[in-house]
Amino acid sequence: MGGKKLHNHNNNNNGAVDTNSNNSNRNGTTTTTTTVKPPPVTLQQSPIINLDRGDPSVFEPYWRKNGGKCTITISGHDSLSYFSDPNSVCWYMEPELQEAIRRVHRVVGNAETEGCHVVAGTGSTVLFQAALYALSTSSSSVAAEPMKVVCAAPYYSQYKEQVELLQSRLYEWGGDAETFDGSAAPFIEVVTSPNNPDGSLREAAVANKTGNGKLIHDLAYYWPNYTPITRPADYDIMLFTLTKCTGHAGSRIGWALVKDVEVAKKMTTFMQITTIGVSKDSQLRAAKILDVVAEDFGYAGNDADKTFFGESRKLMAERWEKLREAVKDKKDVFTLPKYPKRYCNFSGRYFQPAPAFGWLECKEGCDASALMKAHNVLTRGGETFGVSSRYTRISMIGREEEFERFIERISGIQCVDEEDEEEEEEEEGFVVMNGNNGGDVIRLGNENSNSHGKWLEQVEVQ
Amino acid sequence: MGGKKLHNHNNNNNGAVDTNSNNSNRNGTTTTTTTVKPPPVTLQQSPIINLDRGDPSVFEPYWRKNGGKCTITISGHDSLSYFSDPNSVCWYMEPELQEAIRRVHRVVGNAETEGCHVVAGTGSTVLFQAALYALSTSSSSVAAEPMKVVCAAPYYSQYKEQVELLQSRLYEWGGDAETFDGSAAPFIEVVTSPNNPDGSLREAAVANKTGNGKLIHDLAYYWPNYTPITRPADYDIMLFTLTKCTGHAGSRIGWALVKDVEVAKKMTTFMQITTIGVSKDSQLRAAKILDVVAEDFGYAGNDADKTFFGESRKLMAERWEKLREAVKDKKDVFTLPKYPKRYCNFSGRYFQPAPAFGWLECKEGCDASALMKAHNVLTRGGETFGVSSRYTRISMIGREEEFERFIERISGIQCVDEEDEEEEEEEEGFVVMNGNNGGDVIRLGNENSNSHGKWLEQVEVQ
Repeated sequence: MGGKKLHNHNNNNNGAVDTNSNNSNRNGTTTTTTTVKPPPVTLQQSPIINLDRGDPSVFEPYWRKNGGKCTITISGHDSLSYFSDPNSVCWYMEPELQEAIRRVHRVVGNAETEGCHVVAGTGSTVLFQAALYALSTSSSSVAAEPMKVVCAAPYYSQYKEQVELLQSRLYEWGGDAETFDGSAAPFIEVVTSPNNPDGSLREAAVANKTGNGKLIHDLAYYWPNYTPITRPADYDIMLFTLTKCTGHAGSRIGWALVKDVEVAKKMTTFMQITTIGVSKDSQLRAAKILDVVAEDFGYAGNDADKTFFGESRKLMAERWEKLREAVKDKKDVFTLPKYPKRYCNFSGRYFQPAPAFGWLECKEGCDASALMKAHNVLTRGGETFGVSSRYTRISMIGREEEFERFIERISGIQCVDEEDEEEEEEEEGFVVMNGNNGGDVIRLGNENSNSHGKWLEQVEVQ
Repeated sequence: MGGKKLHNHNNNNNGAVDTNSNNSNRNGTTTTTTTVKPPPVTLQQSPIINLDRGDPSVFEPYWRKNGGKCTITISGHDSLSYFSDPNSVCWYMEPELQEAIRRVHRVVGNAETEGCHVVAGTGSTVLFQAALYALSTSSSSVAAEPMKVVCAAPYYSQYKEQVELLQSRLYEWGGDAETFDGSAAPFIEVVTSPNNPDGSLREAAVANKTGNGKLIHDLAYYWPNYTPITRPADYDIMLFTLTKCTGHAGSRIGWALVKDVEVAKKMTTFMQITTIGVSKDSQLRAAKILDVVAEDFGYAGNDADKTFFGESRKLMAERWEKLREAVKDKKDVFTLPKYPKRYCNFSGRYFQPAPAFGWLECKEGCDASALMKAHNVLTRGGETFGVSSRYTRISMIGREEEFERFIERISGIQCVDEEDEEEEEEEEGFVVMNGNNGGDVIRLGNENSNSHGKWLEQVEVQ
């Protein structure tokens, strides 16, 4: 009965679990199966809650209220040229944006920009690729084999996709940095701190030990909205994005702070060859937004709580409080990581990190994302991040109403022991494939359909 | 003496010919040398005229006068999300932009959009790469070897760079389509029409003959500013860009019209993985600009001459007239291609194409771009486009004052026969390396300097 019901769900174009019975993982090995108790009928009929994506809608109400100061007007004759700043290594970067970036880092104290070159990107995603290009073609690392790119698991699911997309001979995915032997050849390690998906603060796992590793620090979440700012980050290549800083994902603006001028030039060359620069309209908008965010601090009489970051921190802290409260009684189902309080130099107070994602851990043998999906909650499973399927990631930065619905729904979620389930299976249970999806998108809905709505459900973002 | 003089020029940070005496081409073969008579002292001291780049400043005066209608205002709470249109294959594309694109093509009559999916890009450059990815990973073309990418010479110099950038195992550069054997394996042919650099109208050179070829049509210049619109183009993948259509290079907006939904989805996936979409601010601006451009036609009582395209066509025609007039007396130095008049459906009149680039042909043995550089005119040499160095490309779409200065300077340019030159060499001539620069950027200025101004001179755009 359960299986059938699930298929009916698929036909609803709401997206649900794909129960392809021929499922196998990328390596062709057979998948293990676990069983999940079907949720009550009321939940099965409730709307899909999509917590899979990191769309930062959480900040929208703030900007609705305070966005006036950020308004920009662009006339028909503005920004016609490809070129922006002949004095910058990054020739397509608007000087206003560069200044705003340096200023916001000074005010927040989260990165040392002195002595760094700034390279702009269409989001930080493309700057990760630009850095891979720069590091894998530098004269000191020319190798017969593609350079391995590693990251400690659980790692951001898209690194692997980005590395593997074009099957480059320059670099290739090397998996978990913790188990990587960095002694043999030059390699690249990505350090995400705070980490996506689990919010932990990180340092290089292997690169610093062997001396063979080149480092890319993805600091997308190192802002006081999410975590105490304990010191200015000071690394060779640091990636940031407006998306996670202020929530303006649609503008697609990211930046890299780069110490070595040759690396900065190569990254710029990558941007030049692939996209001939970055939208100036969005650069100017980002400059305005970052200026407003930095000025807030002055206007608020240096009261960090009244700034955008202060308001956002409160918002994130409230959400985390609600989540922890809701999960408190579900220890038999899942647990959340605990983060120590730290002193934040920007806020002038101690607080606990409130990461952009919740990292749920279920008990051994339970497929966490399948469990959530069975309750019509879309999350991103641990295997995508290079770890066990007993973990799953939920976005904490989506829309308020979706988040509230999720909190309500938590109470109904339960994981049934496999032994119990086997008894029930015939009658009520349905099989969820515990396969390694290897970073592939999760296919939802009827795969034979070309409906664009269904195609959209396959889109993995952040 | 000449050589020394040239080196002195290099030290001026104005950019000039790099006369590295160890010059050799990519294949390591020795280069042949020709000699160019040094220009009169007055010219050597005159400012650099940069006609190397295709920055479309020619349209700026039009937009200064008429840009008010295109003004847009963006508030702080606009365009926060990654997502735009769940009903479109291209989920990150603003519906307004899609509508504006379809409308402008209907009004101009240069492309059939019916039955096509529209995929947006950060310029059309990245959509070329997205198309390579889509075509080289489609199930019907999976091959053991990378798919060859070919284009009839002279071809746009950046295709090769884009194809080779990441040393992909999916595709590789195959060179001139005219000499390519397309019978063996699936391949991709790029057809640029009107062609960059030479302005010719083109059809596939090899793909249609063998049946093995997949086609990408780059129609960046198929607008009535440059060429008569004789029919709506109707191909599998058609690339367009706002840069060459209206001159808004800084917005970095391009689009692909794609017939096969699976190809459109793969191109969207490429965009998703590499940049998670395209700036919404620029998408909305482009929508506005294209709407104004299309509406003009209605407001002008269907008098195409009074539209943006009509005004731009006049501007381009005037520049070409001046160029042809200036070159008329220089037949011993260089010649320009001739283009037949054709009837333009949009304008309702016969006219001669006025391409975005002039394609200068010098006599056998003369290095055209070196000749120009000796007169402080930066152009892009034929070898970059896969043909002889006796050709060079000059931008016709740069700033008015730069173009006018170039027209004045033409009268002083002369090519000296090698026999004559040998006699003079000791005293006045200087050596210019006739090397194959193989698509490399031309290094200008003192290479040992890290001055950003000099680095900028190395940037090749369009």
